[in-house]
Amino acid sequence: MTTRSSVRHTAFASAWQTLLPIGLGPAGGYRRLAWNDADLACRQWFRAQAQARDLILDEDGNGNQWAWWGEPGAGAVVTGSHLDSVPGGGAFDGPLGVVSGFVAIDVLRERGVTRKRPVAVTNFSDEEGGRFGIACIGSRLMSGDADPATLLARVDEAGVTMGDARRRGGLLPDAAGPDPARLGRIATFVELHIEQGRRLVDLDVAVGVATAVWPHGRWRIDFAGRGDHAGTTRLADRRDPVLPMAETILAARRAAHDHDALATVGRLAVVPGATNAIASHATAWLDARAPGSDTVRRVVEAVGGAATRAGAEHGVGVEVAEESWSGGAHFGAELRERLAATVKDRLGAVAVLPTGAGHDAAILAAHVPSAMLFVRNPTGVSHDPAEHATLEDCLAGVEALAAVLEDLISEDPIPEAPVS
Amino acid sequence: MTTRSSVRHTAFASAWQTLLPIGLGPAGGYRRLAWNDADLACRQWFRAQAQARDLILDEDGNGNQWAWWGEPGAGAVVTGSHLDSVPGGGAFDGPLGVVSGFVAIDVLRERGVTRKRPVAVTNFSDEEGGRFGIACIGSRLMSGDADPATLLARVDEAGVTMGDARRRGGLLPDAAGPDPARLGRIATFVELHIEQGRRLVDLDVAVGVATAVWPHGRWRIDFAGRGDHAGTTRLADRRDPVLPMAETILAARRAAHDHDALATVGRLAVVPGATNAIASHATAWLDARAPGSDTVRRVVEAVGGAATRAGAEHGVGVEVAEESWSGGAHFGAELRERLAATVKDRLGAVAVLPTGAGHDAAILAAHVPSAMLFVRNPTGVSHDPAEHATLEDCLAGVEALAAVLEDLISEDPIPEAPVS
Repeated sequence: MTTRSSVRHTAFASAWQTLLPIGLGPAGGYRRLAWNDADLACRQWFRAQAQARDLILDEDGNGNQWAWWGEPGAGAVVTGSHLDSVPGGGAFDGPLGVVSGFVAIDVLRERGVTRKRPVAVTNFSDEEGGRFGIACIGSRLMSGDADPATLLARVDEAGVTMGDARRRGGLLPDAAGPDPARLGRIATFVELHIEQGRRLVDLDVAVGVATAVWPHGRWRIDFAGRGDHAGTTRLADRRDPVLPMAETILAARRAAHDHDALATVGRLAVVPGATNAIASHATAWLDARAPGSDTVRRVVEAVGGAATRAGAEHGVGVEVAEESWSGGAHFGAELRERLAATVKDRLGAVAVLPTGAGHDAAILAAHVPSAMLFVRNPTGVSHDPAEHATLEDCLAGVEALAAVLEDLISEDPIPEAPVS
Repeated sequence: MTTRSSVRHTAFASAWQTLLPIGLGPAGGYRRLAWNDADLACRQWFRAQAQARDLILDEDGNGNQWAWWGEPGAGAVVTGSHLDSVPGGGAFDGPLGVVSGFVAIDVLRERGVTRKRPVAVTNFSDEEGGRFGIACIGSRLMSGDADPATLLARVDEAGVTMGDARRRGGLLPDAAGPDPARLGRIATFVELHIEQGRRLVDLDVAVGVATAVWPHGRWRIDFAGRGDHAGTTRLADRRDPVLPMAETILAARRAAHDHDALATVGRLAVVPGATNAIASHATAWLDARAPGSDTVRRVVEAVGGAATRAGAEHGVGVEVAEESWSGGAHFGAELRERLAATVKDRLGAVAVLPTGAGHDAAILAAHVPSAMLFVRNPTGVSHDPAEHATLEDCLAGVEALAAVLEDLISEDPIPEAPVS
């Protein structure tokens, strides 16, 4: 056991510590936004980790990175997550899954496990959507779930298109798009992720297995008013877009409460944004989620209706646009039960839980057998510097992932159909 | 009349056209924020205008520019305004007063008017406060109405201090502060400004004289919540600062209505500002104004109370901080009536009106005889690209200002007390 824990501990600490400083801001949050300098440095870190392990580095046209243990090919067992963050995000959301994937390979190699299938660790590009407003870009593009031309034309807050941003990562626009050959190689995808809530804390268990990802989406609500001087324009003459926006924010909370769903407005923009100027335009972004798609749709209808009514009252035009939609995913019961049994066998306990968060695994689940492992987060906080996992729980996560991979790669691959 | 209108027209068009392109953004609004590249280019424009007219250029330690017709000295008649803008502002707010000042000198010289006093055109620095959140910095510093150390330590959104920003304009920090000698030279200050409302339109008069500037101030309201994941945090577990901020925005409008005042929230900040993250912190800036100081104070108390109650309901800490306060100004009746009579005599009509907007003239009015002329704005819109004045009204403004200056400079200066 000493040797085992030593490899896990040393390899984990080494990989984690080298990644930790990249993109860390003065306030303690990360700013690893897709294709910014910090994200490019994270991608360089991935290459170095692959090289140090003598894994085969493979970068696809959608910006996803793959590090292969064994020749890339059919029947592969793939693990991984993402390295980008939300603005001001924590250290664990994404990176924990990538680091754990690399360290699990170290553990399996050190134990001399027989590998009957190729294994890959992956870093999916632009998972958070923190820059262009749509999440899981790398996995959506690979799966053919999103139109490349539409995505590449999206702009960030500085007006840079996604296409131009990706060029900085060495990606040509025409490289983006469905990649059925690569997707077809994946026999099983397992994503390890820090839990974004307190269920594992309440259950007193270090590692859990996911049942489902809730349906969720993002909507942009625009309020078009009329700019004017804050000190000279009578209240009756104003068309102030900030007022109906404020009513809409409160309506979103009410709708979430009424429908037993989640609704959040965490991003706002006000133009021109001067203290002594009535705004000409305001925008609020709505994030809505629920166990069922119909419920999410009802929440968004309620919010949109409230926005339109408040806009009419203030002479402000309102437009609601869907920016992204994910129908959610139920992870297959067979694979999930197999993972749960393996983890329980190795760690002595396991929990089974759903999540409201979106993940690349939920995108892939529509195409290939996919599953998720969660690692306990004592604060329960996510998308914030307070997000945390203890080293002990991180190592338990690596142990669980290693056990799961060991189980999956011990199976003979289904023989490929002979070329006729 | 042909010669007169020709000088006015040519000189106005020339000065206006060279200033017009500086700092104009793609959406049609200006971004001449204190000490940014556009503002520095405007300051360079001022120097060129002074030089072209053989005026004596004089720049003080508070960033104010002065162009003197005659030797700088006691008993001076000063006119001018500012060249900076709010973000996304219009072309007229500020520049119209500076351009009209230069052109009025051209008109008086061309007419061979006898000048018994020195005359200066001035550009007060950082009038809008669009970068550091406090208005009328140049005139406040000169008048001793603001503490230089406190002001210079303020930071803009990028974290640059006002002190560092001013260095780009060649100003050393220890140059900032009260300048009683310079203030003492001013016998009369007259600021010409575009009207920021529709009163002159309603009265069908091109030029008006100001009675008073309303008391007004700016307050920063901070909401300290807890960042979290929008998809996994139960409503009951949230401490979302955006919700009490929304309630506060609506409370500000109600308080303004109840107290017959003006209250505006036109600037917001949400941290981290990601669609899928519950914000950890939110800030709203409140602009409040009314005919009386007590009324403004009552509005701010009502808004602060509503913010605190909403914060408590959501587990969010609330702090209200006064960022600036101006007690308003009543322009002296004697000077105002003299101006009104002069303008009526020259143009055939004049209006007399108060304003809710702050101006350098209101800062100076506490120290030296000051007055304001307003030029009609057909849209009534201000702090927005739609702000406008017709060329005909601009030239009427120049004519009115020239008449006022002619009247003021025809008076012998009060002899200086002999040195005892």
